[in-house]
Amino acid sequence: MRVEQRAVDPRTPGTATRGETVPTVPPAESAADAVDVTALLERGRTLATPVLKAAVDRLASPMDTVAAYHFGWIDAAGNPADGDGGKAVRPALAVLSAQAAGAAPEVGVPGAVAVELVHNFSLLHDDLMDGDEQRRHRDTVWKVHGPAQAILVGDALFALANEILLELGTAEAGRATRRLTTATRALIDGQAQDISYEHRDRVSVEECLEMEGNKTGALLACACSIGAVLGGADDRTADTLERYGYHLGLAFQAVDDLLGIWGDPEATGKQTWSDLRQRKKSLPVVAALAAGGPASERLGRLLAEDAKASDFENFSEQEFAARAALIEEAGGREWTAQEARRQHAVAIEALNAVEMSDQVRAQLVALADFVVVRKR
Amino acid sequence: MRVEQRAVDPRTPGTATRGETVPTVPPAESAADAVDVTALLERGRTLATPVLKAAVDRLASPMDTVAAYHFGWIDAAGNPADGDGGKAVRPALAVLSAQAAGAAPEVGVPGAVAVELVHNFSLLHDDLMDGDEQRRHRDTVWKVHGPAQAILVGDALFALANEILLELGTAEAGRATRRLTTATRALIDGQAQDISYEHRDRVSVEECLEMEGNKTGALLACACSIGAVLGGADDRTADTLERYGYHLGLAFQAVDDLLGIWGDPEATGKQTWSDLRQRKKSLPVVAALAAGGPASERLGRLLAEDAKASDFENFSEQEFAARAALIEEAGGREWTAQEARRQHAVAIEALNAVEMSDQVRAQLVALADFVVVRKR
Repeated sequence: MRVEQRAVDPRTPGTATRGETVPTVPPAESAADAVDVTALLERGRTLATPVLKAAVDRLASPMDTVAAYHFGWIDAAGNPADGDGGKAVRPALAVLSAQAAGAAPEVGVPGAVAVELVHNFSLLHDDLMDGDEQRRHRDTVWKVHGPAQAILVGDALFALANEILLELGTAEAGRATRRLTTATRALIDGQAQDISYEHRDRVSVEECLEMEGNKTGALLACACSIGAVLGGADDRTADTLERYGYHLGLAFQAVDDLLGIWGDPEATGKQTWSDLRQRKKSLPVVAALAAGGPASERLGRLLAEDAKASDFENFSEQEFAARAALIEEAGGREWTAQEARRQHAVAIEALNAVEMSDQVRAQLVALADFVVVRKR
Repeated sequence: MRVEQRAVDPRTPGTATRGETVPTVPPAESAADAVDVTALLERGRTLATPVLKAAVDRLASPMDTVAAYHFGWIDAAGNPADGDGGKAVRPALAVLSAQAAGAAPEVGVPGAVAVELVHNFSLLHDDLMDGDEQRRHRDTVWKVHGPAQAILVGDALFALANEILLELGTAEAGRATRRLTTATRALIDGQAQDISYEHRDRVSVEECLEMEGNKTGALLACACSIGAVLGGADDRTADTLERYGYHLGLAFQAVDDLLGIWGDPEATGKQTWSDLRQRKKSLPVVAALAAGGPASERLGRLLAEDAKASDFENFSEQEFAARAALIEEAGGREWTAQEARRQHAVAIEALNAVEMSDQVRAQLVALADFVVVRKR
């Protein structure tokens, strides 16, 4: 019941401030607390990055350069850069997943690289479709290299992901590619839903959760099973690890949705009130709209007016802050924080159905904890 | 030596008129002449289309509708349409390729569908990247449904191609997916080269052939081997069938390049002088520029001026006709027609290295003949 204890939030809704995501009380002592999450993330990055770089090097010019820019390895002028390649949660999970099946961490590396390639294929295309100009504190690929390169290099990374796995030539690699393909299809479904929701006045909480499950849950699920599949795990074990990953993905996305409104721009690399500026129907918004009551109704009227406002792009900090306050007052912030904890608990619970070493289990729990308390 | 006889062109360069692609003399009698190519194409279409439609039906809304529009099954308003889904050369080849390995034609169907999905993924993305507004006499997807849907549905078709193969769950399917992935990577490389060549003054004939081998040869090669791979063929057989398909693809593309300048708009569904309007550095152009001599040099100066012309889009029919005449005078048209025949001969020659029934061999030869004499 460790997780339940961690999940208790002693504060009332509305008292949290910017930069705090899912507040926790000091947790009960557990094996997960002894895990060095930073070292775990670093190990995943250290194992996966050289293989990822070698894969990207296979691309024909200028796609190799464009991809290297996207990953933060070079700047827009082509000079070496020590870019922020993201948190690297997925590679760490893929490597751990091999160990969950009793294989060496290295066995999970092609899976880690394939998942990273698919994740970045989707970032390249989504940034273009959504018109996002910034990612990880830098101009997005379509801004720097043009839309055609964003499409093309995205396609190339997707193809490369399959290539990396299939060239292993094993039955396990075939099964891993099939799971990755299923996850990619879900990812694309999720983006299609995300786009269609932007044109709608109302999106239900269920629709939002389904979209987030597709857009974030499915690939994280794959990251959590792909190493195990490559390590020879049976379908039941892989399915169970996917269940852990899927709910971890939903927890991850709920935290992302909180950060998208109340995150510290210094940490997230996004603008203040980022998701509100983009009129995103993220979890805090849809939960607040679904809650009912005076604040919920005022928010509904305000967002309906915003949808028609011609000067929306020039709204002041105060105007966005007022909307964020209404979302919080209607309970959208607290509901989303609770949802993150709920999904976190379901993820951890799923792990009980898989036999694995205590050490690996503690590491998977620690990574889940990290996802829910992260600030970026 | 049947092919050589077919390939003789008794006319001198410059006498062919619009609508004629690669002129042939009446061929010597051969088994291929007895083949009903129309029936062969129709069989491929009849076998593949229901499976293709069922695959597209798996896509989430509105991607299923957008894809159905792209394939010509519905019109822009969503009403059923009896669209022109293209010549269906690839499905016919994939089905025949299964038979070349001694398997039933049906064994090649998932391969035929996967290749069609990848081909159409590339059309959706290329049309957007190239800004092409028309395909098969209809507005392209990005024109009708917007750029985001063109990107998204392209991605979905690519993922679906892998799904269709991998869900077979066999070792053969894994090998087939690997070959399809290799072909897709080449396809993307070819599009990258095509885009980069547009920004260059000069492209060599070799560079053009390499680009066309990637963009057209690789996927046609895969179409010609994928059925055989699914039917259990060994790597040597598959490689040889790929060699046939690769050179057939180059012949196909050479004919396409001729049609892109001198094709009959009624048949091709494109504008007159289509490739010239798009400043494409296609084979006739690069061959004419490489030929030397007065016409070649005049063409070079003219195209260099065109590259800077601000009113290029308003050029008259006569101005494009003058450029086409110069390309022909410099020998670019005749060189390309010869190249089509040369690649056709290499393709047929490759078939000699594979054991197969006389009937299947005659059908593969007949399809190769069709590709070189087609008018659209």
